[in-house]
Amino acid sequence: MRPPAGIASTRGPVLIIGTGLIGGSIGLGLATRGVEVYLRDASPTALALARDLGVGRIYEPDLPPPALVVVATPPDVAGATVVAALQEFGQAIVCDVASVKAAVFDDILDADPQLTARYCGAHPMAGREVNGVGAASADLFKGRPWVVVPHAHSQAEAELAVRNLGVDLGGVISQFEAADHDRAVALVSHVPQLISSLLAGRLVDAPVDALGLAGGGLRDTTRIASSDPRLWNAILAGNAGPVTEILRAFRQDLDELVESLEKAATGGPLVSGSVGMVNQVMTRGNEGVERIPGKHGTGASQYGRVNVLVPDEPGQLGRLFADAGQAQVNIEDIRLEHSLGQPQGMASLYVIPAQVEPLREYLQGRGWSLVSQ
Amino acid sequence: MRPPAGIASTRGPVLIIGTGLIGGSIGLGLATRGVEVYLRDASPTALALARDLGVGRIYEPDLPPPALVVVATPPDVAGATVVAALQEFGQAIVCDVASVKAAVFDDILDADPQLTARYCGAHPMAGREVNGVGAASADLFKGRPWVVVPHAHSQAEAELAVRNLGVDLGGVISQFEAADHDRAVALVSHVPQLISSLLAGRLVDAPVDALGLAGGGLRDTTRIASSDPRLWNAILAGNAGPVTEILRAFRQDLDELVESLEKAATGGPLVSGSVGMVNQVMTRGNEGVERIPGKHGTGASQYGRVNVLVPDEPGQLGRLFADAGQAQVNIEDIRLEHSLGQPQGMASLYVIPAQVEPLREYLQGRGWSLVSQ
Repeated sequence: MRPPAGIASTRGPVLIIGTGLIGGSIGLGLATRGVEVYLRDASPTALALARDLGVGRIYEPDLPPPALVVVATPPDVAGATVVAALQEFGQAIVCDVASVKAAVFDDILDADPQLTARYCGAHPMAGREVNGVGAASADLFKGRPWVVVPHAHSQAEAELAVRNLGVDLGGVISQFEAADHDRAVALVSHVPQLISSLLAGRLVDAPVDALGLAGGGLRDTTRIASSDPRLWNAILAGNAGPVTEILRAFRQDLDELVESLEKAATGGPLVSGSVGMVNQVMTRGNEGVERIPGKHGTGASQYGRVNVLVPDEPGQLGRLFADAGQAQVNIEDIRLEHSLGQPQGMASLYVIPAQVEPLREYLQGRGWSLVSQ
Repeated sequence: MRPPAGIASTRGPVLIIGTGLIGGSIGLGLATRGVEVYLRDASPTALALARDLGVGRIYEPDLPPPALVVVATPPDVAGATVVAALQEFGQAIVCDVASVKAAVFDDILDADPQLTARYCGAHPMAGREVNGVGAASADLFKGRPWVVVPHAHSQAEAELAVRNLGVDLGGVISQFEAADHDRAVALVSHVPQLISSLLAGRLVDAPVDALGLAGGGLRDTTRIASSDPRLWNAILAGNAGPVTEILRAFRQDLDELVESLEKAATGGPLVSGSVGMVNQVMTRGNEGVERIPGKHGTGASQYGRVNVLVPDEPGQLGRLFADAGQAQVNIEDIRLEHSLGQPQGMASLYVIPAQVEPLREYLQGRGWSLVSQ
């Protein structure tokens, strides 16, 4: 399904400044499509590694100047690097891929408002659990949101170049103003990260046997708490305004809940209002989670579920997959759960309600032990 | 693997008071193993349904008295129901399965300290996403934590009966004191539920296009926010003390974070201490999540990951499962992710590091498109 090399809307040469995971993946994606790629990095070692991995050639001043510069440095130096690139390459479009956008634009505006015309921001929302050009891939952005963030004075050419870059790399294009983008990622990414980290932080001093009672709920809510602090510090500090605004609203909700639970703790559950507040928090949570788009824009709650016990022996999960794959049933989602001390895990297979019984019967016929809940 | 009917350590007859999901599943599990089960419920309809589903027979006073009474009512009436059962059946062991334990014991102590000897608490930690005896299953407790909660004056027979009941139903037995139990479930279950609901509640008024940027992190952290408020109100109000204590500690951590981010929002990221506090929250989160027991007591982070693009066409996930099942590789875990507007989802298969490359090569050979991150 990959287009043949040489089919790209992006006009090169493209200079990539910052040859980490994101910059390296952009370079590989463009090189795969026949676009000439130049590389620059503050670290000679990272630069040489990117070159050796086929991302592009090291930039030298006697080369033809780049038509597009992509700044893929850490977010805390993105603004200054964009300004320098706009000054150095007077004919080039310059974009950055930092995950916070208003601060970068403000840096350019502060330096020289004339420079802003050739700038348009981008935010490719690809995961960052690993780091460095060694993990780079031409496919990193395939099917992932690629947010184009122009501003009031962006030239049409700048906006188009950033959009084409996203299309060439297989991203799903959307467009936001910088302030809206920063508020959106604060809500859907930065605040959940901090809340998950705060929640997991409460486990540091917990008794070991209490943690043995942990189920899927704790695991889900704290999964992203394992993210690398080094990747997040600059992002979060750089979007402090929108993040703080949401955290303050969260804290106000939390204050009301704690206040009503304190009444229940001292006066019993029949104290006026305490159950009502728990119910309100839970109900609002229901409403909020229903608004998150899932597959086909629906929540997983619309699917039926078949729970299968998976013995903890080599190959059992693979055997389940093989059986499920032959069941003539379209599996929409799957979740696995393990608990401490269990001789087995549980796999939940999600299918449309009409296919629950056929799948159950098929798997039982293949010797699998099912669980009802 | 199910033991033949008639093999059970539990001595009947067993009277189950409250024939919902939990009570019904206990009854089915015991009946399957040849134990005589009596039923009682405040709702004649629920009672008749349980009988018709084969859970047991409706209790009548001229039957031989029960040796064990299991109170499986909603938690806010569990204490009073246990007291009444201890008074009505002077020779029976009585237990309850409410998810909060100190309040139940206090109710018995308040009523008559003499009654406590024949009481021992239990907490089977089986999921509750569905409700009612219609979803009951003899296998509901298989491989799930079954917490035995005796007190200082429990007879050895009472403790043993509750332990045997858990063993008969396939649970993984552990033992806690009531106060420790309530603090443990507050930490690993009740507080994560409330925090997830509060976080999801912040999405209620969010712009639709912002939610379109949601990724796996938001989905994971808010998944349990879809839980039924009716099932949680009584649980949370009944454990208000331990829950409030943890929420207050959480709020203190949050206050410190907000304060330092407010400095960064007004003075920029270079303001002393703001990045340090973000780093501290993230690092403590890392430490906390590492303490949650996973499969074999290790975190998923020790596994390597193979990411596969799954086209959104019928049968594709099944085809992937079939291929993965034939790869001669032991798959330890799997996660699926869908995003708005994507023509495909991404499946992450977790295997030991040495098997990453063999699995990648096998799947690529079968025509799958892999993603590096």
